[in-house]
Amino acid sequence: MMTLFTFDRAPEFAHGFVRDIRIRWALEEAALPYTVASVPFEPRRHLAQQPFGQVPFLRDGEVELFESGAILLHLGELSEHLLPRAVPTRAQAISWLFAAFNSVEMETLPWVYFHFNRVQNQPGWLAVLEKRRDRRLDSMETALAGRQWLGEDFSIADIAMSDVLRLVGHLGGLADYPACRDYVTRASARPAFIKAHQDQLAYFARTAD
Amino acid sequence: MMTLFTFDRAPEFAHGFVRDIRIRWALEEAALPYTVASVPFEPRRHLAQQPFGQVPFLRDGEVELFESGAILLHLGELSEHLLPRAVPTRAQAISWLFAAFNSVEMETLPWVYFHFNRVQNQPGWLAVLEKRRDRRLDSMETALAGRQWLGEDFSIADIAMSDVLRLVGHLGGLADYPACRDYVTRASARPAFIKAHQDQLAYFARTAD
Repeated sequence: MMTLFTFDRAPEFAHGFVRDIRIRWALEEAALPYTVASVPFEPRRHLAQQPFGQVPFLRDGEVELFESGAILLHLGELSEHLLPRAVPTRAQAISWLFAAFNSVEMETLPWVYFHFNRVQNQPGWLAVLEKRRDRRLDSMETALAGRQWLGEDFSIADIAMSDVLRLVGHLGGLADYPACRDYVTRASARPAFIKAHQDQLAYFARTAD
Repeated sequence: MMTLFTFDRAPEFAHGFVRDIRIRWALEEAALPYTVASVPFEPRRHLAQQPFGQVPFLRDGEVELFESGAILLHLGELSEHLLPRAVPTRAQAISWLFAAFNSVEMETLPWVYFHFNRVQNQPGWLAVLEKRRDRRLDSMETALAGRQWLGEDFSIADIAMSDVLRLVGHLGGLADYPACRDYVTRASARPAFIKAHQDQLAYFARTAD
């Protein structure tokens, strides 16, 4: 049985958004059995398992993985419900998986952090961050127009991309992006997401301050 | 034969750092045959191949990939010189591959962009970016201390990670990180990197303004 590791607690604003949700969701989609274990939020001493002191990480027998992208890919290899088997469509799904973690999240997360770390109200820099964020959202709006999922079928790429966009939308960043909003809504309506989300909320509620 | 696509030209400050270098490097390491083709830097009309209008992308027969991480992974599947075959070490290499593109590049590239886009000299925000960058560099300094490569052998993870850190070092960001600096120096001394770097410089020099 696989063990998914997350923190023992998280700040309340992060409940529902801690990245273990991406893995819980994939495991639920594929109906793979798993247990959840935790490491301390502070002090962070799990550097042997996760060199940046982050979560999630996963243990599957002798295999250990960190980074949610790598874990999603591992689960995709275990289940064709998560990653298509035909070589060309598999390659597109993996391309989109990396796009979620690099091209898109790399340009949206600085804006998210600015939201939480405003430094002396710096409107010039906020404008730069919004412009970078919107350049990517423009591309995603085009890519998602008229499409249900990034590929023909739902895949790990959709788990990653919709979770990246869900956080942007949660902070009001998708107001001008209806196709992105609809995509997040569609993804978040999947029973496996709903289960994963409820499980994460319940997990952190147990240990809330 | 594989075809690697890059831009037909690039601004001079980017020569030697356009991301096709990651793919050229991997192809040279594995001695895989390839040709290089280009798409216009402006106007960008290759959205069917690369939804963000970026480079590189790769065509390998019926397989098309975008995002340098996805392409590196594809090449890793083709050559054990690029990705170990034993399942546990492969999983660690893929974890580090995603770490390069998400945990590390996501926190260093905003600082790089600030370097090129300073808005009204905003020292408060620069301090935030440096702090975020250095938190990741601290982790990498620890991870690389006493190690030659991220895994036992050189892999696609080292191509990605050392290229991310090479740009940081180029802009002066590794002054306090000797293990990261040595790692970049060691990676950049590999014959395959030197060949890829020279090829990229020659490619863009042809079309320089």
